[in-house]
Amino acid sequence: MKIFIKNVLLPNGKRANLLIEENRISAINPKRPDKSDSVIEAKNMLALPGLFNMHAHAAMILFRGYADDFELHEWLTKYIFPIEAKLRPKDVYYGTLLACAEMIHSATTCFNDMYFFEEEIAKAVEKSGMRAVVSKALSKASYKENEARKAIKNLGKYKRVMPALGPHAIYTTDTETLKAVKELASELRVPIHFHLSETKKEVEDCIKQHHLRPVYYLERIGFLGSNLINAHCVWLEQSEMKVLARYNAKVVSCPVSNLKLASGIAPLSEIIDAGVTAMLGTDGSASNNSLNMFETMKLASILQKYRYNDATMLPANKTFELATKNAGEALGIKAGLIREGFLADLCLINLKHISMIPCHNAISNIIFSAEPACVDTVICDGHIIMQHGKIPWEERIK
Amino acid sequence: MKIFIKNVLLPNGKRANLLIEENRISAINPKRPDKSDSVIEAKNMLALPGLFNMHAHAAMILFRGYADDFELHEWLTKYIFPIEAKLRPKDVYYGTLLACAEMIHSATTCFNDMYFFEEEIAKAVEKSGMRAVVSKALSKASYKENEARKAIKNLGKYKRVMPALGPHAIYTTDTETLKAVKELASELRVPIHFHLSETKKEVEDCIKQHHLRPVYYLERIGFLGSNLINAHCVWLEQSEMKVLARYNAKVVSCPVSNLKLASGIAPLSEIIDAGVTAMLGTDGSASNNSLNMFETMKLASILQKYRYNDATMLPANKTFELATKNAGEALGIKAGLIREGFLADLCLINLKHISMIPCHNAISNIIFSAEPACVDTVICDGHIIMQHGKIPWEERIK
Repeated sequence: MKIFIKNVLLPNGKRANLLIEENRISAINPKRPDKSDSVIEAKNMLALPGLFNMHAHAAMILFRGYADDFELHEWLTKYIFPIEAKLRPKDVYYGTLLACAEMIHSATTCFNDMYFFEEEIAKAVEKSGMRAVVSKALSKASYKENEARKAIKNLGKYKRVMPALGPHAIYTTDTETLKAVKELASELRVPIHFHLSETKKEVEDCIKQHHLRPVYYLERIGFLGSNLINAHCVWLEQSEMKVLARYNAKVVSCPVSNLKLASGIAPLSEIIDAGVTAMLGTDGSASNNSLNMFETMKLASILQKYRYNDATMLPANKTFELATKNAGEALGIKAGLIREGFLADLCLINLKHISMIPCHNAISNIIFSAEPACVDTVICDGHIIMQHGKIPWEERIK
Repeated sequence: MKIFIKNVLLPNGKRANLLIEENRISAINPKRPDKSDSVIEAKNMLALPGLFNMHAHAAMILFRGYADDFELHEWLTKYIFPIEAKLRPKDVYYGTLLACAEMIHSATTCFNDMYFFEEEIAKAVEKSGMRAVVSKALSKASYKENEARKAIKNLGKYKRVMPALGPHAIYTTDTETLKAVKELASELRVPIHFHLSETKKEVEDCIKQHHLRPVYYLERIGFLGSNLINAHCVWLEQSEMKVLARYNAKVVSCPVSNLKLASGIAPLSEIIDAGVTAMLGTDGSASNNSLNMFETMKLASILQKYRYNDATMLPANKTFELATKNAGEALGIKAGLIREGFLADLCLINLKHISMIPCHNAISNIIFSAEPACVDTVICDGHIIMQHGKIPWEERIK
């Protein structure tokens, strides 16, 4: 099906018509549409590339509000681990699907997930119409090469799923596991999704055990590379950022979760200045507690202003790139920009929604005032997955 | 008109029927309703007291997105002051009304405003159906006792408006003005709405000029009292909090604006521990850029966790009180709780909205995941001012 989007406002402030063919934006300002095209009148709409939520544990939406206001260790061991132990595959399927609904409502078309029962995650992604990077969380105890290999192969069957390997973190794996994961990822050419330097304690423990700060430890064991996506990175030192940049390893900041669990505020501006490809994520909704990337973008920007005592830090345009263009680049896919030949992963924002009025600067409103309810239409891989704020399948899973 | 709300979930987790008569909650779990009552079926709803936005410059919604990512001084002098100089009364009326729409959508029934053309603000409040404390921003140059007296008298004509005096801040007034305002406020028994210790520079300048930190300076000139509502208070020392508590002066924290303008994070938990009545506000939407009290509550809580490096700080229940019960107490009105005899200022939250699913703990969801779109119905002063997400007058002003 072709989709013709008429007279829509683009992020650059210009109006254009967009033609979507197959799963691509095939033309900007093409001639008149064919009669067979599905036409979207978009005079009051702003077109944006779909947002990328680059660190999530989607199914944890089931534990939203289950345990708040606890210290990380108590939260994990007394509440989260015991309830996770009871999860069945179907729970992960429905949890992920519910999370997909929340993400679609907030203009997200692609997420980077790490959890258990990875094939259930992939099935939910398929059902939702979204795109996702899917990895199974692996620990020292749970990593088995054969199983990992099989999981990657199975995930490869799902059209909009990019399989990945998910070694959890330094403190839940060991050198042998990380080396094995790295080798397998290189062989299978898949990304590695990892938690890095989320808490101060984690860094201190790494120094105690390996006599090196985390990034240097990972460098020594040959773990760094352009396929490594590191979530959190709250406690990086400048020299570590430079090492990550040298290997072209990626960083995903999760500002909301980092505040809520009292982990800290990532030195995101320095990470960017060091030349690292940086992105944003929500983390799971047991520690956020939402999957709203508008909120995450706003927080990312205003926390950097606070951290560096400088209101000019991480301005709106730059913040927007973290959630769009940078993620497309990091995943090596043509996505994250409204441009000919790019994937038709985009959303239409209702400029008449109260959170978008007035509109002196559309990107400023997207970063600093937009609410999920301003998202009218979401298109992913050339298909309309939400229209007029309605997702066809969502009522049944609520 | 009587309103009967049937089988609604209360914040305490129990279900009840509520009867509203005149402008009060007249009964919780009364006998069957009269035939004449307007009945709201609320099986899938949570009833909450309406939120209080205790520091706003509502009409500044007109400048949302007009100038972001600037340092405070440049922002004010190059962008905000010049454009404010061009405002006409009608701009303030429509700006305030637009802001009211955004606040109603996000469950707010009462706001504490300070701006110019105060009678236009009052007219917009009247039109909106909300309740508000309204003050004209006063500086050393603009304060004239006769005019202030007249303004208070005029504002008194509006039913849901509580008139107040709004001396802007220490750095825009002088001792004489503050003493005169204090005297007039005592005579007329109205609150004083004030900006206090928002930035570090402001505190340093006060020490240079008056040889005292701001709270001690205000104490010396006799300005402190239970009618004083101090916005911001980012840079209070513990001894100053104790002085404020002794005088029963109030504090309103504005965490979003304070981050965006790089002013800092208020020591809100210490302020509360010192015995001060604390509340929350958004500030104007030129520096926030939204009037969403859900966002403000979430930020307030998670920033305290960060500031004190302790995830147990300012838990959900306590945060909720800052935006409801505490404000009712501060204003000396029976509001901010769902209780017999209290003002019928309340809202109904759609528990089937994606941001409220699942619901292990309703107040946790309200603080940490709720989006404005979950607000179905807002009642203020016994009147339904929004139903099913629709405000009767809003389309005309957009």
